[in-house]
Amino acid sequence: MVDIKNTRKAPFSENIRLREDGKAVVILDQTMLPSGTVYAQLKTPEEMYEAISSLKVRGAPAIGIFAAYCMYVTGAETAGQNPPGDEFLERLEKHGEYLKSSRPTAVNLSWAVDRMLKKAAEEIKRGSGPSQAAEALREEAFQIHREDIAMCRKISQHGLSLIKDGDGILTHCNAGPLATSQYGTALGPILLGKEMGMEFHVFADETRPLLQGARLTAYELQKAGVDVTLICDNMASLVMKNGWVQACFVGCDRIAANGDTANKIGTSGVAVLAAYYGIPFYVLGPTSTIDLSCSSGKDIPIEVRDGAEIKELFYERPSALPEVKCYNPAFDVTDSSLITAIVTEKGICRPPFEASIRSQLRGGA
Amino acid sequence: MVDIKNTRKAPFSENIRLREDGKAVVILDQTMLPSGTVYAQLKTPEEMYEAISSLKVRGAPAIGIFAAYCMYVTGAETAGQNPPGDEFLERLEKHGEYLKSSRPTAVNLSWAVDRMLKKAAEEIKRGSGPSQAAEALREEAFQIHREDIAMCRKISQHGLSLIKDGDGILTHCNAGPLATSQYGTALGPILLGKEMGMEFHVFADETRPLLQGARLTAYELQKAGVDVTLICDNMASLVMKNGWVQACFVGCDRIAANGDTANKIGTSGVAVLAAYYGIPFYVLGPTSTIDLSCSSGKDIPIEVRDGAEIKELFYERPSALPEVKCYNPAFDVTDSSLITAIVTEKGICRPPFEASIRSQLRGGA
Repeated sequence: MVDIKNTRKAPFSENIRLREDGKAVVILDQTMLPSGTVYAQLKTPEEMYEAISSLKVRGAPAIGIFAAYCMYVTGAETAGQNPPGDEFLERLEKHGEYLKSSRPTAVNLSWAVDRMLKKAAEEIKRGSGPSQAAEALREEAFQIHREDIAMCRKISQHGLSLIKDGDGILTHCNAGPLATSQYGTALGPILLGKEMGMEFHVFADETRPLLQGARLTAYELQKAGVDVTLICDNMASLVMKNGWVQACFVGCDRIAANGDTANKIGTSGVAVLAAYYGIPFYVLGPTSTIDLSCSSGKDIPIEVRDGAEIKELFYERPSALPEVKCYNPAFDVTDSSLITAIVTEKGICRPPFEASIRSQLRGGA
Repeated sequence: MVDIKNTRKAPFSENIRLREDGKAVVILDQTMLPSGTVYAQLKTPEEMYEAISSLKVRGAPAIGIFAAYCMYVTGAETAGQNPPGDEFLERLEKHGEYLKSSRPTAVNLSWAVDRMLKKAAEEIKRGSGPSQAAEALREEAFQIHREDIAMCRKISQHGLSLIKDGDGILTHCNAGPLATSQYGTALGPILLGKEMGMEFHVFADETRPLLQGARLTAYELQKAGVDVTLICDNMASLVMKNGWVQACFVGCDRIAANGDTANKIGTSGVAVLAAYYGIPFYVLGPTSTIDLSCSSGKDIPIEVRDGAEIKELFYERPSALPEVKCYNPAFDVTDSSLITAIVTEKGICRPPFEASIRSQLRGGA
């Protein structure tokens, strides 16, 4: 039998990759976008921690892939000192715990670290030495990366079936390649369609207060040659009224069992507008985003962040008096009644979502 | 008979007043808010022109009042040189034309200049000298200012009848005292109620891209001791969903005969959200804003401004790549079907607006 591992090339994404010598993870520093295209090479656990905590790498799937490569790089470094197997595992676990603490709420981060630790433990258990275990870790990281690319491609294919060449598409926040590995989720159908020669007209909400739409979505689409127009969030109503939008595509942070969907603040407003103007509203994301432990959106907690993000961040001078209070929720929940369909790597769920989501998770579609 | 003019004090607004010696107009420089409270004293026609064109004074009613005082100050200066009556009028007309050209689309600017010129012409015609005519101009400017205060007060009283103590109110852009003379239009009921001991909880949309909500509305309400919370425009949906809003109050730039209303970009989105969440949506403005020559919103042209306002203004670094296009409409039109009532100085118009607006303009209500 051919060893599949060695016949497959290392996966590559613009935003994350393993350096060829395996001694560093290379990332596109998202905090410098769009003004600068700066690549950072992370070698030490401290540098890796900081890259996550300072949002140089962001987006749940992207963080997972990054963490997997980090575990390989630190694992290989440790293996180079040729410690006994149990000491190797112990040191790897310590690295993993440290890395996880860089952004404790990021589910994909823990998930990827744990998967890498499990792989290492299995290797040692079956009698491999640290060097062989490190080899296995590299392949496991590649596999996590490849799985994300495959997941994004499937979501993109399913999403593409919902639109046609020439359509206008409105999107909010950023769920593109920078947040994942390739294609992205909400931007996936647009980028896949572009590769196939289709042309879409995308309206990107700038997405206050953190401006992911301006800084990341407009950047990604412009670089890919897609026709993109940046608007302020409050212009979506007029753009829809003008008849320029045939579909809304948004990502998701958590989907409840009934289809209620938490996503970046402002998403629910886009959904209400789309319903009013009779435009289909699609949520795109992996099935790993579906949380059956939440029966509805009421069970999804909403993170409220510092008001300084509204009044001060990015600005030369504060936009309001220091004593003016702000309310700065990071997410909102879109009621499932406003969602036309939920698109995952497994297919397209339509209302009633309670049934279609369960059916899809069981393997049907 | 008592001479009413001399028994009445000069009107006073925080944002515009005549200096006591009558040789300058004093304004609060709105471009410096909220970081600095800077008063500018405008003495020459060039300074006055620049104050309007650079938006140091803004808001249609405020510009009208300012222009009236400017015409008095330049008229008195001219009168001091004791020219013949016709030369006095000629020079005043030249000043007026120059001032009007500072912001050609501002209806209140032309209106106030023309009213002042008419007053001067009447005075000269009835045999007054330039000095007496200048006196009459001062009184006419005071009268324009007083009329605006009275108009705002009436709108505020009518608007106040629509809300109750403790209500949450969402507002968009700025239609407060800074844009008028006192109380304002959309903010009038809130400020009048506050004077009467009522407490409202106001949510101020920051209003991208020019941030009038953050810079001006939050400033005015905070200074007046009103409980105000600043939010990004895309947070209005969640704030309404949370049950925190009992009414929306917005100003208006032009109202068509059927009630369709042009106002700051984003207003129509707020109206759609309010309808979805079952919250009344009120438009407040003087009857001078009603334009019966527009049968519906389709007849109202929408000004599209430079995309640099979205990508660059206020920011330390541009938010998007230079080559990314922007769509930057300054206004949108809210369909009359989304408006609960239109509040003017003459009363409250309810649907069907076609009939109620005409009835109110004829004197009924």
